[in-house]
Amino acid sequence: MATGDTKYDPRTFKALTFHDQLARLREGADTPRAYLERCLEAIAAREPVVKAFVALNEAGARAAADASTARWKAGRQLSPIDGMPIAIKDLLETQDMPTEMGCEALKGNFPKRDNAAVWALREAGAVVLGKTVTAELGGSHPGPTTNPFDPTRTPGGSSSGSAAAVGACMVPTAIGTQVGGSIIRPAAYCGNVALKPTQGAINRGERQATSMSSHGVHAGCIEDMWQVAIEIAARCGGDRGAPGLFGPSTPPAPVRPERLIVLETQGAAELDTAGRAAFESLLQNVERAGITLLRRGDHPWIEALERSLGDAAKVGGMITAWENRWSIRNLVNQNPSGVSARAQAILKSAEAMTPEDYRVLLMERAVAQQRHAAVGPLADAIILPSCPGPAPVWSGDVPGQPLAPRPTGSSVFNMPSSMLFAPCVTMPLVSVGGLPMGAQLMGQQHHDARMTAFARWMLASVAPVIA
Amino acid sequence: MATGDTKYDPRTFKALTFHDQLARLREGADTPRAYLERCLEAIAAREPVVKAFVALNEAGARAAADASTARWKAGRQLSPIDGMPIAIKDLLETQDMPTEMGCEALKGNFPKRDNAAVWALREAGAVVLGKTVTAELGGSHPGPTTNPFDPTRTPGGSSSGSAAAVGACMVPTAIGTQVGGSIIRPAAYCGNVALKPTQGAINRGERQATSMSSHGVHAGCIEDMWQVAIEIAARCGGDRGAPGLFGPSTPPAPVRPERLIVLETQGAAELDTAGRAAFESLLQNVERAGITLLRRGDHPWIEALERSLGDAAKVGGMITAWENRWSIRNLVNQNPSGVSARAQAILKSAEAMTPEDYRVLLMERAVAQQRHAAVGPLADAIILPSCPGPAPVWSGDVPGQPLAPRPTGSSVFNMPSSMLFAPCVTMPLVSVGGLPMGAQLMGQQHHDARMTAFARWMLASVAPVIA
Repeated sequence: MATGDTKYDPRTFKALTFHDQLARLREGADTPRAYLERCLEAIAAREPVVKAFVALNEAGARAAADASTARWKAGRQLSPIDGMPIAIKDLLETQDMPTEMGCEALKGNFPKRDNAAVWALREAGAVVLGKTVTAELGGSHPGPTTNPFDPTRTPGGSSSGSAAAVGACMVPTAIGTQVGGSIIRPAAYCGNVALKPTQGAINRGERQATSMSSHGVHAGCIEDMWQVAIEIAARCGGDRGAPGLFGPSTPPAPVRPERLIVLETQGAAELDTAGRAAFESLLQNVERAGITLLRRGDHPWIEALERSLGDAAKVGGMITAWENRWSIRNLVNQNPSGVSARAQAILKSAEAMTPEDYRVLLMERAVAQQRHAAVGPLADAIILPSCPGPAPVWSGDVPGQPLAPRPTGSSVFNMPSSMLFAPCVTMPLVSVGGLPMGAQLMGQQHHDARMTAFARWMLASVAPVIA
Repeated sequence: MATGDTKYDPRTFKALTFHDQLARLREGADTPRAYLERCLEAIAAREPVVKAFVALNEAGARAAADASTARWKAGRQLSPIDGMPIAIKDLLETQDMPTEMGCEALKGNFPKRDNAAVWALREAGAVVLGKTVTAELGGSHPGPTTNPFDPTRTPGGSSSGSAAAVGACMVPTAIGTQVGGSIIRPAAYCGNVALKPTQGAINRGERQATSMSSHGVHAGCIEDMWQVAIEIAARCGGDRGAPGLFGPSTPPAPVRPERLIVLETQGAAELDTAGRAAFESLLQNVERAGITLLRRGDHPWIEALERSLGDAAKVGGMITAWENRWSIRNLVNQNPSGVSARAQAILKSAEAMTPEDYRVLLMERAVAQQRHAAVGPLADAIILPSCPGPAPVWSGDVPGQPLAPRPTGSSVFNMPSSMLFAPCVTMPLVSVGGLPMGAQLMGQQHHDARMTAFARWMLASVAPVIA
């Protein structure tokens, strides 16, 4: 099992995968139980430093893996992910493990319910192995997880543990969630591929209180990523009122995009020098692979979209702060010391807003979505960095000092897809100084399978960049 | 204080109101505490038979009323509903009372949180007096509440207690919720006015798991109805992603509609003879008041809308069953005997559905919404009965007999507005056999204030029907 816990090289890093074991499972050369035991060995080896998990249900996972082993033996597997170990971000409820959301005030919270997506995974035969660390309440206050490629650095957030568990080859896949940048950024910092689907494409179950949150999939490879997403959607569909994920029942075949729009967004100003150079090198490799690139100067509609995204971090952040206002106020009222100062500062900003302020933000978001739809006919997809550089160093808050504003990194390149309700896939095609830094493809709403097909082609056909 | 617990006559019934007390409160001729005490007296007199409440917080209400009394005395009232006693349907969480949702499996559930709308009501100074009986989980399995005008009959559901508490003059207003017909039908059976707002217009807080559910207001008069709705929206806005309720900060002035479309819907087949005759008499009174009526034969777009609503009860019912599937499955798994056979039968039908079935239903709903938008320019609003007749007799399930299919009455006239995300207001303009039966106005999305203005005019200017 690959570790790579010092230097990351996208050419040689061997992620943990499942889809390529299906023939061996069918033949009995491997079993879900044996696969699980290898995961548990990797966890034993890496977890003391990586700290990806907040709970493990080893006994439950072994029982599920044994049941899956019996199904494979009988040729009656429930799906192509039958027997796949998977980790669940600790924002989603699970009937067999507590759901504490990285928040002191929720210590011991154990509703003994399965989130719809967790339910669907169990129905597909997946082995729910544990709950992964989330930044507090899916926000920015970090948990203990470290980056699997450098323990002095953040794994990103808020899906910290899901990204790190996949990056450390503890599990082949994990469920994350994103409101601002909580799937794509940690996935990029940890060398994952990941899908943040079209808004509403995967049923969020009880977690529907914000308009920009999505369940998504972290994986070691594009095939496992798609298979997990479509197996969930095949069983519980999308959010209430949404048609759910569209796409094939197995990973879409690779497709070469003809034209990509390179979007700067407000992230361009935050790209570090090495990150900018590495991303530009990647774009050269993309062009060498025969793909035409368009930039903001090439069409007024691209310029218009760039302008609409120029304040995305603030617009998306304030929309979300407003939507979380009552749930966090209730939590603080119940347990004032059980919610971080970071979350309480955001609550305070939300409580200074009026319904009219929120309406204005919704209109800005709607305009950005219109402008994104307008560029649809110009290109196959949009490409942009997944993060402003490799994962920053994070050694914890210093008592007496002001709180670090972005302990899990900046979501500046992620808020656009969240705001646009757009599907995106991050690809581990870039490394900087021995650390992963991803690039993402973003598409029109409901083009999740198309982005997956493009990403699959690019991962196979575009030379990665080592800077 | 009016009682009217034998015969209901819309010409003489005197509902409990609050807006007309504001001058007296300002002058000190009345106080919120004295108003509350009168409500508590009415509850003491009527509650043993009506059984509208599942919980009362008399001490908390008295403290809130005293605080309000002090504000009025100081001329510093928080809003025009400062001091108004209000009851909350027991589906919404309240920090001071349990939230048991009429379900055995949730006995003792006490999350000590305020739903966003409850929070807003407290911020506006309203006196949250108690939690009202809901049919189990907002469905059709009835609680103990009886109709305030005939205890052998249902008050309707699922907002049974909210409708009955207002009908019995225990409180001037109450919060209800509707997914199929849970506000408008019980309001009509109990002689209330009520607003089921545009989908998303009032923030549902934690209760956002279904695409057709709304918070709404039951009241004794149109002025109080609007004031409560707009005070909530002014403080917590609409659902995440929705712009929230539009309209003036005080009750809109009466407006005479020029043209109304009379919609049959599939309800026409369920109207009882007396109900049909009474509604047709009302339409004659409407025409006498100078309003032009259009019917399905008058325009092909009206006919198209009628056709799209021809299966509304099934379409709306199945959409909701699918959306509730995981939450009810979790509840049943935790406590199989704690969920009624009625709810379990619906769960079973939901578990026979696929995501593709749900997609087809969503498309049917979207087509109906398009057809509703298309008739917008033809008339000011749509008029239809609020229920198929007066409240039916309900004496409980008979052991050994099949479950009565509609113990709280039929939602056949209510599912259209729910499916169309359309605002509607029910008006107590009809009585049949000494029992209330309402008529409703339904408008285009976001025309809540307009429907309120029309209803206000009609309540003042259209002769009611006593059949």
